[in-house]
Amino acid sequence: VQVPPGGFLDALMAEVGDWMRDGETKVLMCGMVGARNGWKEAPYVAVSATFDQVVAGVIRVEAKSLDSRIVPGLIGADDGGVPEVMRGEETEIFGLKSEGGEGELQGDTQLCLPGTHTKWVRIKSGKIAAFSTSMTGDLYKAIREGTILRTCTQQQEPADGDAFLRGVARSKQEGELAHHLFGVRTLVLTGKMQESSASSYLSGLLIGHEAKARARAGERVHLVGDSTLCSLYATALHEFDVSSSVEPAGAALRGLVRIAGSLAW
Amino acid sequence: VQVPPGGFLDALMAEVGDWMRDGETKVLMCGMVGARNGWKEAPYVAVSATFDQVVAGVIRVEAKSLDSRIVPGLIGADDGGVPEVMRGEETEIFGLKSEGGEGELQGDTQLCLPGTHTKWVRIKSGKIAAFSTSMTGDLYKAIREGTILRTCTQQQEPADGDAFLRGVARSKQEGELAHHLFGVRTLVLTGKMQESSASSYLSGLLIGHEAKARARAGERVHLVGDSTLCSLYATALHEFDVSSSVEPAGAALRGLVRIAGSLAW
Repeated sequence: VQVPPGGFLDALMAEVGDWMRDGETKVLMCGMVGARNGWKEAPYVAVSATFDQVVAGVIRVEAKSLDSRIVPGLIGADDGGVPEVMRGEETEIFGLKSEGGEGELQGDTQLCLPGTHTKWVRIKSGKIAAFSTSMTGDLYKAIREGTILRTCTQQQEPADGDAFLRGVARSKQEGELAHHLFGVRTLVLTGKMQESSASSYLSGLLIGHEAKARARAGERVHLVGDSTLCSLYATALHEFDVSSSVEPAGAALRGLVRIAGSLAW
Repeated sequence: VQVPPGGFLDALMAEVGDWMRDGETKVLMCGMVGARNGWKEAPYVAVSATFDQVVAGVIRVEAKSLDSRIVPGLIGADDGGVPEVMRGEETEIFGLKSEGGEGELQGDTQLCLPGTHTKWVRIKSGKIAAFSTSMTGDLYKAIREGTILRTCTQQQEPADGDAFLRGVARSKQEGELAHHLFGVRTLVLTGKMQESSASSYLSGLLIGHEAKARARAGERVHLVGDSTLCSLYATALHEFDVSSSVEPAGAALRGLVRIAGSLAW
């Protein structure tokens, strides 16, 4: 949802107004609504961060008769000292069902939340210890819209599993991403790949390059997010000898409910 | 120049008509004009290719009273067996002034022709032996137009040499390109980089990742193309301990003249 300046309350009511007919007044939000250019900035909580620290960072926003609050995002840095930020994924993480039960983060776990900006998250001793972002989904979209591959990658459905695997296999070969990308065009141009397979191959290349940089053979990764996308990541990770599990749908909702239950309303 | 179907002769005359007032009728063209969706397809010559083989591949096109011809492109494959194609760069290569003199390709040389689709070309014993493409320029444009980095990379001038070097240095660190790209946003978001420096940093990241994959420390690369772009590549290659030289402007023209001189008109 794209919201005009000053239009956040209207946008909120358009989304959830129907749910509030019984007089409910409590609203808890997460994600970009708490960004600097969102409704109201909810300052980042620094990692490593516990559930209680995130709950303590929840802010209130003015919204007439509603008691509206926003979950803060997290800030960290990768190994090279470059800042890392997330908004929304922290709530999904606190809603994990299959990791340790009852929403408690336990043990040391590697999470991956695929999407426009895929997050790789390290859980240590019940804390969100560190995380790192890959713009893979954003790149996929921009490449299909704005490069020479535009013409040959228009068709996205039906997905072609073999072409995806071929792209992942290609990502294992020598050469940088920008080189492998040009191959999408030449394979189609020379008749070595059907144009209808090019989008899936491109997806395999991009996720393959991400997995190549992230995968530690023998490790296990817990995937959280859209089931189709999680399945693609699971397939790519498998090619790098990394096993994976997939979180049941609804982590963000479970996280919001859990955070809401810990707030004094 | 974007040419409508059937409009190639008009487009040609619009470009060079003034030059032909003295009754000149010979026209030699190279580049995408010889592609399948160009004026007329000039079938690719396979590498490794000599100057004489490329000359033998020149085709004629119907153009009223003009004797018009098109230089063929080259086709090859990279180490992974994925096809490689070029159109136009072969003519620049045969116009090299500083490599061996008199346009003869001598010895073993690594060329780099930076651009939308940068070509890395290996010259061996006077032949174009092999080549490989990186879509670096195309990606740079698409990222600035279609990703979350759009807002922070609008300003491209003046170029910021320090930010470019910072991007190259970042490319040396662990992590895939899609990860390093997200850092452009977080560095600006957290005030660690001026927004006016983001385009140069992004350019450094992209050329850095290309150089990282291509550079063999101690090697020398001869750069051919736009002098500003060649200078950026020279800077990035230097950071990977690769020295470089830059071809004087006009290689494409010199190549056309040389090929024209070898044709029977």
